Amino acid sequence: MEPTCFPAVSRVAVSGGTHGNELTGVYIVREMQKQEVDKVGSVSVTTVLANPRATDACRRYIETDLNRCFTNALLSAPITDSTPYEMRRAQELNAQLGPKGSEKAVDLLIDLHNTTANMGLCLIFDSLDWLTLHIYKYIQSKMTKMPVRAIQLNKPRSDAYCLESVGKHGFAIEVGPQPNGVLRADIYNTVKTAVDLTITWLQEFNSGCTFEGGEVEAYIAAKSVDYPRDPDGKITAVIHPKLQDNDFKLLQPGDPVFLSFSGETVNHEGEELYPFFVNECAYYEKKIAFHLARRETFTLPSIRLRT
Amino acid sequence: MEPTCFPAVSRVAVSGGTHGNELTGVYIVREMQKQEVDKVGSVSVTTVLANPRATDACRRYIETDLNRCFTNALLSAPITDSTPYEMRRAQELNAQLGPKGSEKAVDLLIDLHNTTANMGLCLIFDSLDWLTLHIYKYIQSKMTKMPVRAIQLNKPRSDAYCLESVGKHGFAIEVGPQPNGVLRADIYNTVKTAVDLTITWLQEFNSGCTFEGGEVEAYIAAKSVDYPRDPDGKITAVIHPKLQDNDFKLLQPGDPVFLSFSGETVNHEGEELYPFFVNECAYYEKKIAFHLARRETFTLPSIRLRT
Repeated sequence: MEPTCFPAVSRVAVSGGTHGNELTGVYIVREMQKQEVDKVGSVSVTTVLANPRATDACRRYIETDLNRCFTNALLSAPITDSTPYEMRRAQELNAQLGPKGSEKAVDLLIDLHNTTANMGLCLIFDSLDWLTLHIYKYIQSKMTKMPVRAIQLNKPRSDAYCLESVGKHGFAIEVGPQPNGVLRADIYNTVKTAVDLTITWLQEFNSGCTFEGGEVEAYIAAKSVDYPRDPDGKITAVIHPKLQDNDFKLLQPGDPVFLSFSGETVNHEGEELYPFFVNECAYYEKKIAFHLARRETFTLPSIRLRT
Repeated sequence: MEPTCFPAVSRVAVSGGTHGNELTGVYIVREMQKQEVDKVGSVSVTTVLANPRATDACRRYIETDLNRCFTNALLSAPITDSTPYEMRRAQELNAQLGPKGSEKAVDLLIDLHNTTANMGLCLIFDSLDWLTLHIYKYIQSKMTKMPVRAIQLNKPRSDAYCLESVGKHGFAIEVGPQPNGVLRADIYNTVKTAVDLTITWLQEFNSGCTFEGGEVEAYIAAKSVDYPRDPDGKITAVIHPKLQDNDFKLLQPGDPVFLSFSGETVNHEGEELYPFFVNECAYYEKKIAFHLARRETFTLPSIRLRT
């Protein structure tokens, strides 16, 4: 079968600090800017500190979560005096790196994130994309010392709210566990390696290499589960020790998921699914204790440059 | 040798949320309040959420670090319109639980904290105190599944800036690693056990038991080390992977302590000391990458109730 062809991926953006207290991306972007990385072989590289005010404050955001501001609706909403800082900033970033959905948009946007969950290295995709899944397959084949996983959020592109949806292709690199406001050398090196491998892959792709197809697994987000709460909204239970740190370990009906402060165990009900973002700090306010996913296998076609 | 005698320890305060994003203490105090724990045997128990505004915001503090506000000078400073929230709150807490240094002060104040450093369970003391070191020895003898350590900050009481210095006796329980804004079941249970064991010890002490003396080890804070920084104050290196998570592992001259973003290793210089609070989130702004301590052995006298 003939390979599927894609145009060259010549313009890449690497962003960090979309959440100002996720420090790996902040420091990788700053170091790339210090080293004046703007061209690597056939690829031009734009580095962006996405939320500078939140980064200075070492907080996730100042007024609203920037990484929920990139839907078509919010990107085209009129700016008024009461528009939150992050919605203005989203429109600035869309002007710089997009506009989303246009020919002018960067070819690939990589947004760097951390989680307090024990998720290892994950690539998060808004929707299926053979080219970025090939990059995932490549990173996975090279970084063999740790699990490298793909997560698909499965939203239509217009509703996709994350920064990476502004690029023609895009994904988030999500690595944990790392506390907010802390920078760990091991995680810094992991993310830097994944970014470097992506750029290496792009060189090979742009030079005309054919990448053989094959099977890849991805976790498809299915639903989310909130903490048990009292009538005032205060949580009454914590993630059970048997679930804590066990992201991507299949959760079966009857497995413990919460332990209440009074000592009762709450068990998982319903179908077998894979938990992820277990006990992510930023999701307490979003009413998410963990997400659940199905695991699916995709058969990738071979791909090469359209000439 | 005759045991050293102390008066009964009848009034205990347990505080949490002194730092609003250290959730173990917040939830332990809330649960004790929900269970209406105010008297256990011979001991009256006061539970306090120390910084409610910071707890609501899930931040360490609103205007200034509350746990640096309990020096004699700050507790007696006049309140003006520009006095930060936390300094006002410190004076309120001092009125409720102290006044510091007075006969009216609670007999024992236990303040609950978390750290992002891999410190296990530590009891932190402002100064040497046979009674609280006996509590430490008791907790250590009962909690054998994890290291339990004592840290002494070694400040004169009038300069002691932490909340626990308001009690006649006092210590902080510091447990990690736990990210700020995250609650882990294992750490919740660890701290709850340490609080319960303290109250059990007090029952035995108040009932007239003699506690045999013996040797205990404590880490005596000696100095702190900042991150390497550029002229703008931005950090240029991260804790070295060989030091990360290795709190209390003796650091010898030549051992790696930092890894710069450009890949260079910085080694420890000077005497052999024990690192702790390695990569604590809140200390980036305090210009502390880690503390260093000497380890000393103390010979405790036997103690019993003064009758």
